[in-house]
Amino acid sequence: MSLKDYEASFLDYVRKMLNIEEAISVLYWDLRTGAPKNAVSQRSNVISQLSADVYKMSISKDMAHYLITMEEAISAGKCSLEVEKTVKYLRKQYDRNTKIPVDEFEAFVKCQAISESVWAEAKEENNFAKFEPYLTEIIEYKRKFVEYLGYKDCKYDTYLDQYEPGMTVNKLDEVFSEVRNKLVPIVKAVSTSGKNFEKEEMKAFVSTQKQKEICEQLLASLGYNFDAGRLDPTPHPFATSLNLGDVRVTTKYHENNFEKALFSTIHECGHALYEQNISKDLEGLPIAQGASLGIHESQSLLYEKIIGQSFEFWKANYPKLKEQLNGVLEHVSLDEFYKVINNSKPSFIRIEADELTYPLHVMIRYEIEKDLLDGKIQVSELPSIWNQKMEEYLGIIPETDREGVLQDVHWSMGHFGYFPTYALGAMYAAQIKATMEKELPNFSELIETNDFQTILDWLKVNIHQYGAMKEPQQILKDVTGEELNVKYFVDYLESKYTKLYELEEVNKS
Amino acid sequence: MSLKDYEASFLDYVRKMLNIEEAISVLYWDLRTGAPKNAVSQRSNVISQLSADVYKMSISKDMAHYLITMEEAISAGKCSLEVEKTVKYLRKQYDRNTKIPVDEFEAFVKCQAISESVWAEAKEENNFAKFEPYLTEIIEYKRKFVEYLGYKDCKYDTYLDQYEPGMTVNKLDEVFSEVRNKLVPIVKAVSTSGKNFEKEEMKAFVSTQKQKEICEQLLASLGYNFDAGRLDPTPHPFATSLNLGDVRVTTKYHENNFEKALFSTIHECGHALYEQNISKDLEGLPIAQGASLGIHESQSLLYEKIIGQSFEFWKANYPKLKEQLNGVLEHVSLDEFYKVINNSKPSFIRIEADELTYPLHVMIRYEIEKDLLDGKIQVSELPSIWNQKMEEYLGIIPETDREGVLQDVHWSMGHFGYFPTYALGAMYAAQIKATMEKELPNFSELIETNDFQTILDWLKVNIHQYGAMKEPQQILKDVTGEELNVKYFVDYLESKYTKLYELEEVNKS
Repeated sequence: MSLKDYEASFLDYVRKMLNIEEAISVLYWDLRTGAPKNAVSQRSNVISQLSADVYKMSISKDMAHYLITMEEAISAGKCSLEVEKTVKYLRKQYDRNTKIPVDEFEAFVKCQAISESVWAEAKEENNFAKFEPYLTEIIEYKRKFVEYLGYKDCKYDTYLDQYEPGMTVNKLDEVFSEVRNKLVPIVKAVSTSGKNFEKEEMKAFVSTQKQKEICEQLLASLGYNFDAGRLDPTPHPFATSLNLGDVRVTTKYHENNFEKALFSTIHECGHALYEQNISKDLEGLPIAQGASLGIHESQSLLYEKIIGQSFEFWKANYPKLKEQLNGVLEHVSLDEFYKVINNSKPSFIRIEADELTYPLHVMIRYEIEKDLLDGKIQVSELPSIWNQKMEEYLGIIPETDREGVLQDVHWSMGHFGYFPTYALGAMYAAQIKATMEKELPNFSELIETNDFQTILDWLKVNIHQYGAMKEPQQILKDVTGEELNVKYFVDYLESKYTKLYELEEVNKS
Repeated sequence: MSLKDYEASFLDYVRKMLNIEEAISVLYWDLRTGAPKNAVSQRSNVISQLSADVYKMSISKDMAHYLITMEEAISAGKCSLEVEKTVKYLRKQYDRNTKIPVDEFEAFVKCQAISESVWAEAKEENNFAKFEPYLTEIIEYKRKFVEYLGYKDCKYDTYLDQYEPGMTVNKLDEVFSEVRNKLVPIVKAVSTSGKNFEKEEMKAFVSTQKQKEICEQLLASLGYNFDAGRLDPTPHPFATSLNLGDVRVTTKYHENNFEKALFSTIHECGHALYEQNISKDLEGLPIAQGASLGIHESQSLLYEKIIGQSFEFWKANYPKLKEQLNGVLEHVSLDEFYKVINNSKPSFIRIEADELTYPLHVMIRYEIEKDLLDGKIQVSELPSIWNQKMEEYLGIIPETDREGVLQDVHWSMGHFGYFPTYALGAMYAAQIKATMEKELPNFSELIETNDFQTILDWLKVNIHQYGAMKEPQQILKDVTGEELNVKYFVDYLESKYTKLYELEEVNKS
């Protein structure tokens, strides 16, 4: 067979895998947006079967042969960059899926399922002791697996790399510590300022139908393409790319808290704009997706926090919102509205935390995960370590483990290395924004005039189109001209919250 | 391997096929209820791939081996009835899929695709000559394939059996001719009665949201289980069983014709109630579906026409509907409403035809299909034969082929034997209703008091639970105590329309 034919056969094999993955994604979307209750148990069998099929294809003898042969062709300079990146992606997946002995991995998957359900009970009952033995077992698996998977400097690097390729503990320790040092004093200053911007009007009744209309208009205005997507309600909002022509967003409507649906929609819109604008040339390849969770989150946070919670955005959109909300905000000025949507207060629950305090929630989890993996701390110590760090970083201690160490599902599944990407996304976003301000000197004005096409075009050219053709740190460097530099993030927060809360200069450096 | 283990392996193989089919059904449901435009082309690749996988499994060497071995075990009396029916179902599918040479079948599939798109153009342009050569080719395939598939008395029987197992041309000729002889005079009497029950009020504006609420209430009231289904809008309403816990209905809202959504919802509800109430013991077997298209249609028509368009039904529900419609029907009495929803008039388009004229539309198609297959008529003659039959049965002649012989998509795909099931469904429904009137002596009263649980329970016990465990004619005989007897259908229509249109006795027999 000629190389050309061989490559075509390889790409056909890859497309077949992706087609099954697309079917699985539709099934998940359906389950999460309104599949009837009684559908679930048999539908799970379908998902399991298709997932097993894709898994088998990813580690088959055919795949092994394809990878070796294609790697030779790549070394000989005979393949396109797209094919090279595809092979690299699949090689990583192949190695990850084959290095761990199948029986141990299957035992782990079973353990995950039990652990997750015990976690849910333990959280409900506020009973950490119940969860402890299961989490201990999960962590033993993670420690064992990292030996199979291999690592250079730190064990944690291996897991981090699964979500944020190229990111390391060395780098994270450095940037997180810098951010923490600057953030903690700001958070303290804000929480002792005596100011609370909350407003009763934000809890007024707004019908689901009305909120839906507003969200649809926001999406359209930000450049979301409804010919390649749709908006649906769900209990836990997400965006999902089924194929490049079908990137769906979801949101949750609270009839006495319209603010939530608004900003969760803008957040998912940021994710969706990324996937909708990946180059069609990558269609049918596994690299037709975001570069990493961190880069993905940079896009959602750029839209939600930096644009959507900016004064400029509401200067342009508040009059219309007031009109749409039919008197609900009659006595709330633009200035007050801007403040209420940016109200900051240390709180216990990560997913409800505001822009300023959120990164500190992430750091607590990161430090604990790393130490657990290295065996520096034991599971039994978690509640006290958790509360100690909460006090140190946020100045508050949860009264129950349910609001503390038991709040997130991630550890029960052994998802280590995931949390840092949320904070990285916020840092990337601030750095990208700083570049946009240089390259689009009228950046604020664009927001003030709802000219989002210019912003989207810039993101498309500089980030979106590449999908996973580039590694996250490469994207950041190509776009901003430098490596991750948290100065932008710290400056952004310091400037915004100093002004909002009329603080004395907090970090005199 | 023991027979027990072998049977388990066989059933596992079958379940795997059904799981893939379930995924395909979800993808279709999604495409037909709101998948974005740009999703379609790549999603079709996914559907093709999964369909090919199921097809390959249905004719694999494994399947051949399973069938032979299981058939031996069945002959030796070692299997349950469920397994026996499953093997019979799969054997039929295997034979059908293997008797036609693969290359010829693939050529036919290609021809189908072209033919369907040429048909759409020809219909649009009202140009039968354009479609003629493609339809001719399709029919040549159907003639050739029936030789491979085999037949006893009539070629058409083989195709009929694919949709309505056990039904034959002999039987159909007999019942259709009897029905036609009785129906044509009634239709004539109605259309020359000078009465027209139409009302302007039925075209008043009713919002989609309001129609949706009414349809949801109707569904719930008829016994549709929303824990095992959902209602969505679509351009071409259908019901689909994804698994036994997930049977969805769809409808179309016309803002100036609320009547359509109402009755299409009740129609699909009838289909869905059937699938929702199949015995859970059949889950994971291909016989966990309706017995045939005809029996399926008997359930949808029983609910839509016999119950939903009855006077009793609206005696119970009209006051509430009037209230829900907020004055729209203020000047329309119950009597007038009952008449308008049963207004009958010969018309050109089958899918818009009423209860009384519909079977005649089906007969025209049936007679033409049969004669085409037997070579008794040529494709070129179709427009004139069509118009001739329209005049003979319905007393009207379409002015264009678009409204005549070109109106339906079915022939372009070679779907022969499908149309008769619509008329059979109506006949089955009337016969089943007559039995219900005997066994539930207060049948009318049940409708008048919205006591649909009693009716549903009866259908469940007598029909629904069996799924495809029984052949359609067996079901009819077990339920009603006799074979298909069109007297019930003719009596039902004659009595209803004689009263409605205050006709002299039409068929003095």
